Amino acid sequence: MSEFKMAVQRGRKIPKEDKIFGISRRANEMIAEKGKDAVINATIGALLDDDGNLMVLSSVDKTFKALKPDEYAAYAPIGGTPAFKAAAIKAALGKYQPKGYVQAVATPGGTGAIKNTIANYSEEGDNVLTADWFWSPYGTITSEIGRGVETYEFFTEDRKYNIASFKAKVDDMLARQDRLVVIINTPAHNPTGYALTTEDWTGVKDVLAAAPADKKIALLVDAAYIDFAGDEDKYREFLPVLEELPENVLPVIAYSMSKTFTLYGARTGAMICLAPTEEIAEEFRRVNEFSSRASWSNCSRAGQSIIANIYADEALKAKVSEERKEIRDMLLRRGKAFEEEANKAGLEIVPFDAGFFVSIPCDNPDELSAALEKEGMFLVPLAKGVRVSVASVSEANCRILPAKIKAVMDELK
Amino acid sequence: MSEFKMAVQRGRKIPKEDKIFGISRRANEMIAEKGKDAVINATIGALLDDDGNLMVLSSVDKTFKALKPDEYAAYAPIGGTPAFKAAAIKAALGKYQPKGYVQAVATPGGTGAIKNTIANYSEEGDNVLTADWFWSPYGTITSEIGRGVETYEFFTEDRKYNIASFKAKVDDMLARQDRLVVIINTPAHNPTGYALTTEDWTGVKDVLAAAPADKKIALLVDAAYIDFAGDEDKYREFLPVLEELPENVLPVIAYSMSKTFTLYGARTGAMICLAPTEEIAEEFRRVNEFSSRASWSNCSRAGQSIIANIYADEALKAKVSEERKEIRDMLLRRGKAFEEEANKAGLEIVPFDAGFFVSIPCDNPDELSAALEKEGMFLVPLAKGVRVSVASVSEANCRILPAKIKAVMDELK
Repeated sequence: MSEFKMAVQRGRKIPKEDKIFGISRRANEMIAEKGKDAVINATIGALLDDDGNLMVLSSVDKTFKALKPDEYAAYAPIGGTPAFKAAAIKAALGKYQPKGYVQAVATPGGTGAIKNTIANYSEEGDNVLTADWFWSPYGTITSEIGRGVETYEFFTEDRKYNIASFKAKVDDMLARQDRLVVIINTPAHNPTGYALTTEDWTGVKDVLAAAPADKKIALLVDAAYIDFAGDEDKYREFLPVLEELPENVLPVIAYSMSKTFTLYGARTGAMICLAPTEEIAEEFRRVNEFSSRASWSNCSRAGQSIIANIYADEALKAKVSEERKEIRDMLLRRGKAFEEEANKAGLEIVPFDAGFFVSIPCDNPDELSAALEKEGMFLVPLAKGVRVSVASVSEANCRILPAKIKAVMDELK
Repeated sequence: MSEFKMAVQRGRKIPKEDKIFGISRRANEMIAEKGKDAVINATIGALLDDDGNLMVLSSVDKTFKALKPDEYAAYAPIGGTPAFKAAAIKAALGKYQPKGYVQAVATPGGTGAIKNTIANYSEEGDNVLTADWFWSPYGTITSEIGRGVETYEFFTEDRKYNIASFKAKVDDMLARQDRLVVIINTPAHNPTGYALTTEDWTGVKDVLAAAPADKKIALLVDAAYIDFAGDEDKYREFLPVLEELPENVLPVIAYSMSKTFTLYGARTGAMICLAPTEEIAEEFRRVNEFSSRASWSNCSRAGQSIIANIYADEALKAKVSEERKEIRDMLLRRGKAFEEEANKAGLEIVPFDAGFFVSIPCDNPDELSAALEKEGMFLVPLAKGVRVSVASVSEANCRILPAKIKAVMDELK
């Protein structure tokens, strides 16, 4: 049965209003009523300057303005232009030279890469596995195509990556499913800011390598924030571990240009496989291009041309990296400021390393979020806590927020 | 069972190489070998000048170049920016003032609109209905999400719209399905260039209005080429007929900016409903935004901003229309030239009115297409004939092609 007059339900829970959109709307209403200084809007998943304006790298803007009509108005091939695909692979892997067979398929941001991976490496009715702190659109994406989400506990009680919980869930799910898509969002995990260490990664590899060889596993690394965790080489040190997996595990990287090139609205991303055989790499290209053709056809060309042009020009590429480092350093200072002040205020946060977001665990996220809104603090309530976007608030506000949040939490007790 | 090592099959027939891409590749190989003048590449679905270069309206290029970073780099709302949605509705409907409840949801080109409509207004296992001359991606889109395509005969033997065949198939399918998505690509139909007349439309309306009231029908008008059929108002005269339908039939227009604004690569389109009630319009917005969120998230912003900026500036809008008229007139001349020469040469073509494509019926499309390739003529073979893109060849070549095609056809007999 459908709750709708005309549309099909297909088991989906479809909200009346997008949650984050609703919060942002209320934040804007309060700004209109009480002024800008009365409100801290920590909901937005884009890097804003201290005055709340979107930060776009000036080198990227220059590259955009210099595009010729052919570079934005012509259809791109379904899988992406060859120059874009080559650049996306370099951008995702950095200095790492993969041993396996690499194929890239252009996607509209990271979302398209996640959607295609789930659609092509799980069966209808399957569940995908991710951590219990997770980006809620994973749930939207799966439910749209008849899959579900199961979670393992991200952290142990002593604040380490919970490899035992990961192993238990993988084994449990593989006893019920012939296929498994595992989604790991790292580094600068959304919503917690955690980064799996190389040790964590080795643990993940060992668990998946121990799965029965007739089970087919896709290991999807959602690396949307990889260039905002810290040193770009250091945070790619886990990549070789992905290539120690057996042939029944396919590593796929969902790479997005949204954050790395401050091109959120360009909808430019790629899904990149590090396949153990050429055959598996070629079927990855073929099957995912088919799904792209059937969903959004080719991807927006402007973003593809911008990335390709940046990678075709060493000086421009260096300039982009330099500008990115500046805004990343600003972001890292905000995160550290928030963490420091949380410690001082006695506000517990989920293990945090770096990135756009910090999360605060609590038992009553919706209640806390509502109480904070009354005080002009707009955050996103999750299943297990609330998420603060340090990307969208100034360092000064990152210093103010923790004690204010703690005070509201204490009042609710 | 899957033919793949790792990927799921899900009943899909997934080609090794995209058909049109393969033909274009062979055309380029022949150009490299024998020179440009030896080849006529009539496969490309974009309007090219007589030298084979993409035509981009200079007013659109100026608008692109003037975009501010916020206008292309910021995330758009999932359903599109309010200014884009308003402009898309105006662009799609022209001077027509709808009586019903209109909602627009941004989509990546027409493809996204078709995908969302099928996903949300049919059940898994259902088939959609379109004409037997049809754009082959309808088959790709349906098979990706577990639907199929059934066809009715587009034309009667005396070359009229075959309303009897349409009625027979609608009745037949509704005896088997509770829901039906009907796709009508018009005007300037791809691949034939036919446009349903107001009389044809009245027939379609009568057939759907006669369906049992408990059947739920979405009538999807794929209007990708509406601004390249001829006078923009005249070719919108069918719109009022869509609003004479009963409440169990929802008219949806798939409108694409690709052709109208020569922005193929911008992936900017919209699905627009003319709903009989506010409730049905609101659920259209809600359900389709959910599917968008789960498939590609928000849509590329640059195209949205360009359309919004054009509609915010009357002089610019007039300039765009004027420039579009020029290239449309060029296209119309090409189509008429092809039609005239086909008549002279005794080459049968499918009923043609205007647009990017002309189709030639034949019993052996693949064989004919291969034989034409040997002579340097690259066309797209379909189920019932071959498709010629007059959009991508000069008027001079439109005059040459029919007799040459006829000669090759006669040799094959």
